[in-house]
Amino acid sequence: MINTPHGSVETPVFMPVGTQATVKALTPLQVKEAGARIILANTYHLYLRPGHETVREAGGLHKFMGWDGPILTDSGGFQVFSLGALRKVTEEGAEFASHIDGSRHMLTPEYATGVQQALGADIIMAFDECVEYPASYDRTAAAMERTLRWALRCKKAKTGEDQALFGIVQGGAFADLRAESAKATAGMDFAGNAIGGLSVGEPKEVMHAMLDVTVPLLPEGKPRYLMGVGSFDGIVEGVMRGIDMFDCVLQTRTARMGTALTRRGKLNLRNAAFAKDFSPVEDGCRCYTCRNFTRSYIRHLINANEMLAATLLSIHNIHATTQFVNDIRSAIESASLARFRDEFFENYSG
Amino acid sequence: MINTPHGSVETPVFMPVGTQATVKALTPLQVKEAGARIILANTYHLYLRPGHETVREAGGLHKFMGWDGPILTDSGGFQVFSLGALRKVTEEGAEFASHIDGSRHMLTPEYATGVQQALGADIIMAFDECVEYPASYDRTAAAMERTLRWALRCKKAKTGEDQALFGIVQGGAFADLRAESAKATAGMDFAGNAIGGLSVGEPKEVMHAMLDVTVPLLPEGKPRYLMGVGSFDGIVEGVMRGIDMFDCVLQTRTARMGTALTRRGKLNLRNAAFAKDFSPVEDGCRCYTCRNFTRSYIRHLINANEMLAATLLSIHNIHATTQFVNDIRSAIESASLARFRDEFFENYSG
Repeated sequence: MINTPHGSVETPVFMPVGTQATVKALTPLQVKEAGARIILANTYHLYLRPGHETVREAGGLHKFMGWDGPILTDSGGFQVFSLGALRKVTEEGAEFASHIDGSRHMLTPEYATGVQQALGADIIMAFDECVEYPASYDRTAAAMERTLRWALRCKKAKTGEDQALFGIVQGGAFADLRAESAKATAGMDFAGNAIGGLSVGEPKEVMHAMLDVTVPLLPEGKPRYLMGVGSFDGIVEGVMRGIDMFDCVLQTRTARMGTALTRRGKLNLRNAAFAKDFSPVEDGCRCYTCRNFTRSYIRHLINANEMLAATLLSIHNIHATTQFVNDIRSAIESASLARFRDEFFENYSG
Repeated sequence: MINTPHGSVETPVFMPVGTQATVKALTPLQVKEAGARIILANTYHLYLRPGHETVREAGGLHKFMGWDGPILTDSGGFQVFSLGALRKVTEEGAEFASHIDGSRHMLTPEYATGVQQALGADIIMAFDECVEYPASYDRTAAAMERTLRWALRCKKAKTGEDQALFGIVQGGAFADLRAESAKATAGMDFAGNAIGGLSVGEPKEVMHAMLDVTVPLLPEGKPRYLMGVGSFDGIVEGVMRGIDMFDCVLQTRTARMGTALTRRGKLNLRNAAFAKDFSPVEDGCRCYTCRNFTRSYIRHLINANEMLAATLLSIHNIHATTQFVNDIRSAIESASLARFRDEFFENYSG
């Protein structure tokens, strides 16, 4: 259970991503009806547009975007890392060029924390340095150590009690660096602990190995959050290893490509095979989309370039994922998680 | 009041357009919550994609698109007319090239009626020939006379009792041709009568003059439908002249351009002036958008190319229009329509 000023959330939990203060193609009401209880927004994007001061003046992110449940903001670290050649990292912070207009900006641990305080999310993240996969041991160690120094600076910079600050474990694909990072981060007594720098291109086995060394070193009584992971297999493997929180753009991004997520795997509804398939996207699903529309209709919307296709598939994909996590929660309660996972993988094509 | 197999609709009424079996950017639930009670779909588009046989196999348009209220389909005549050089009209019908893939097709009065019967709308329209503005007297007269001959063929072609067939008055900008068309169309005893070929570029005064000669010749006891008109001023001027039904793409098209329709006129929310305007799109409006979001937020969504902008503005624009029509209905009931119109125009900037 995660308690926030905007309500409590049962764990494990999946958070849909609302990059620019909107879960793409959905109203907040649709997000809620799809089963989401907490969402993520991106500090980097909102800092650039509309600007955190505008959001602050609007009364904070909840009011600005019309979402009254809990919100988590990332620190901007991963987005700046993703800019590649457009950014330069020093001990002070990360200097980067805006992807919108090329203007120069600098995010430091203190500034990233201040921006997140202006946005007003319930959970905010420490500013971290992520490395690509593969990266050398020395480079990975240096970024991990800097992330620890930055984490302390974020902790000092944060004011007030309303927002929970989470630390982020780094250490790339190196077990000893992950362990060192996890111990040091846990020792800083954050409200929760995240694992960053995974799902950046490494094989699944590497991710699992890193989780296996990291999670046991993070306090069980505080939320453990695996950043950027949200596929069905990623979630169940994460929960098996003790993860409580997940986020991913997969649900809405694949929806915009015409793809549905189901317990059996992905379904590309552009496929001509669905032209006269009058069954729902996923049999037995109780989402608005599956209760009211057919594969045939959604394929038509995709073909006709109608925005409603993205909306209906986003609703389904978020519902399917939150339902999957709810089922995992039930399996945990009945002590049958391993069996749940095995049965899931029997039918899942990825 | 219009009675259909999918419920009754009070008049005057505004119908949002769902060209390709979707009111763009909205779920059917959002369309209904925005206040719409009947929608229009386009035969030309659905004939080409997904094909009327697919819609028939799906169980008809209502089931296919998840809209359980009344639906009106146009005949395809106006869309084919809009193809310009891509179509050729003969006494038999209209031959045209698909705007999607250039394939050749032929719509005749009989075939257009059959397609509409396959789609299964509650109200279907006679296949007509529209002329551009300005058009010569002879050309306009010939198209008007052909429309009458085609109307008879549609009437003969139609089978069953579930669908109401409406005739369409043509006659361009010529009062005597309009009168002749109205008398002959009225004489054919359709379930309702539409006025086509207006709002195609002629000055407002011409439209009003044509309505003034046409409407009195159409039976009062049957719905009178002004096709393609749905601006606030167009609606109130139409109702003053006896029109019961309106449709327009304005509400959803302007929404996708970032424009809100209000009682005072259009509001372009791209404007930088709205960056920190934390008031609703329209003061006093009770739509989902105005109850939950600000001009500042919607401007942000537009700037950030977020689909939700089109959704939220479509909800507002449809709600604002249906509310406008509801207010007109109240004004009629209290015999104060002329005063309502005068007060409306005092504040309206178009």
